[in-house]
Amino acid sequence: MKTAISYGSVQDDLALVESALGALRDVDFAPLAQMMDVGLSGGGKRLRPALALLAGKFGEYNLELLIPLAASIELLHTATLVHDDVIDNAATRRGRPTVNSLFRNTTTIMVGDYMFAHAADFVARTGNVRVIRLFSQALMAITRGEIRQDMTAFDARQTVDHYLQRISGKTASLFAAACEGGGAVTSAAEDHVQALREYGHNLGMAFQIVDDILDFMGDEGEMGKPVGSDLMQGTLTLPSLLLMDRHPQDNPVGKLFSQRRSQELLSQAVDMIRSSDIPQESYNMAAGFGRRAEEALAALPGNRERDTLRDIVHYVLDRRS
Amino acid sequence: MKTAISYGSVQDDLALVESALGALRDVDFAPLAQMMDVGLSGGGKRLRPALALLAGKFGEYNLELLIPLAASIELLHTATLVHDDVIDNAATRRGRPTVNSLFRNTTTIMVGDYMFAHAADFVARTGNVRVIRLFSQALMAITRGEIRQDMTAFDARQTVDHYLQRISGKTASLFAAACEGGGAVTSAAEDHVQALREYGHNLGMAFQIVDDILDFMGDEGEMGKPVGSDLMQGTLTLPSLLLMDRHPQDNPVGKLFSQRRSQELLSQAVDMIRSSDIPQESYNMAAGFGRRAEEALAALPGNRERDTLRDIVHYVLDRRS
Repeated sequence: MKTAISYGSVQDDLALVESALGALRDVDFAPLAQMMDVGLSGGGKRLRPALALLAGKFGEYNLELLIPLAASIELLHTATLVHDDVIDNAATRRGRPTVNSLFRNTTTIMVGDYMFAHAADFVARTGNVRVIRLFSQALMAITRGEIRQDMTAFDARQTVDHYLQRISGKTASLFAAACEGGGAVTSAAEDHVQALREYGHNLGMAFQIVDDILDFMGDEGEMGKPVGSDLMQGTLTLPSLLLMDRHPQDNPVGKLFSQRRSQELLSQAVDMIRSSDIPQESYNMAAGFGRRAEEALAALPGNRERDTLRDIVHYVLDRRS
Repeated sequence: MKTAISYGSVQDDLALVESALGALRDVDFAPLAQMMDVGLSGGGKRLRPALALLAGKFGEYNLELLIPLAASIELLHTATLVHDDVIDNAATRRGRPTVNSLFRNTTTIMVGDYMFAHAADFVARTGNVRVIRLFSQALMAITRGEIRQDMTAFDARQTVDHYLQRISGKTASLFAAACEGGGAVTSAAEDHVQALREYGHNLGMAFQIVDDILDFMGDEGEMGKPVGSDLMQGTLTLPSLLLMDRHPQDNPVGKLFSQRRSQELLSQAVDMIRSSDIPQESYNMAAGFGRRAEEALAALPGNRERDTLRDIVHYVLDRRS
């Protein structure tokens, strides 16, 4: 596990989450073991499980409850990525081969389901029904967001509000569940749990907006995917929505969607966005969510973990890949 | 809901399970509502939820716990079917169009995930952690069984033991979970819960073997799929495994798998099976599991529901579609 950011007082405990996840590779069926290995070695930042552990510091920090919760959150996230990669037909993620690039799509769907099952089992081990429902409701919100994204692909009649609703489900819901879950499972005070949820939601919104800016502005090498790949797949994100807003009569996005997958129109749209102040305006919106995340922290007692949560907001806003 | 069998004292309560499932169609996003409608209108026999309700009669029968459990079990089953149909590229199931025949595969994967989320949420509403873990472990067993089936497709080096292991995961695990769950959630005596589990497992084994016989012997019209479709997809089931056992040197299955999808070789294999005593031998094996299911019932108190559970064994063994 490589992280560009330190998670402070929970950094060492994250290794225990990693071990819990690693144990899933020990299955008596070699191909499945290999698939789990590919699926779990995503080289991610383990941000969501870190949030769950940090949130746990505001209650009675108990690793017997927090490790299964954190593992569950990361596995739920991984399972949705595995299904996403089938859907996007992606060959690599963060520069590594995807499960679907090595195995048949059909098998990959089942591997995702198998991960969901383990994620459900991990969260059930907390024995905490509220936290278990947080998990199922986050999965509902994620899939609803993904379905909306999929059903509205190449549909130019979308607004920034639609976008915010979509990313709230697709991304922010799991950040919120990680933070609320960490607080709830350790019996933190209810107003602290609510503050953690509020923090998580806003952090997740900021995270996704930055992701969507990087899709246009990032370095292809660092990102591990081509610039403008969202648009090429018909997904309107904040920068392309702002571009459409500014050029309602004549914009390359509308043409790209009606003529589909013209590399020339894509380059034109990317160039227009990159040379405008749209990235800055999008970033300002991300920073607004970041600010709300920080404001939510004010309701929490001042301690090392609160400082780490604040650092994470800045890390999320400033990251380049 | 059309059932060829009466579920006795729980027949009326099954309508409440149906309503709970029907409520999932009420979503604020029209395409998703339509997809849920297609996915849920499968015209199934609702056998698994009926088992959960019947098992609940051996404890303190409480619909507030049993309806969510039964709905969860049926939805988990439906979600795996939705993913199966993507994998098999099936156009119809039980004579009705599949979700994937009406929507893109990518969307369909997400619809299955959305159903998993609701299934997890339903079971969480029981507030019973043991029952929640039954659910996650059944999903693990199902997906492990499906992955094994998928990874060993067109692989002739399989035995009857492999087959039994596969169907135990793929099918019997959910029957067992429905029965154990119904008992556990109503606080039935532990030896009764174990007897219910034993009954469910053996009933599920019998059910799947009969399914696999019907794939060779059934009427295409009633089944809603072509005869020999398992074999055509590379799945070895009990009848084809017995055929290979009897003709180790020269059998059309081995040839079919090496030359793949020759309609002539398929017809040859189907004819050899149909004109042999393999269907009877397979049926005897199913009947053996049916007997074990009935034997498990002996540990339960004699009542109407125990009689219904016995009737279900005979229904499962005698069904023609």
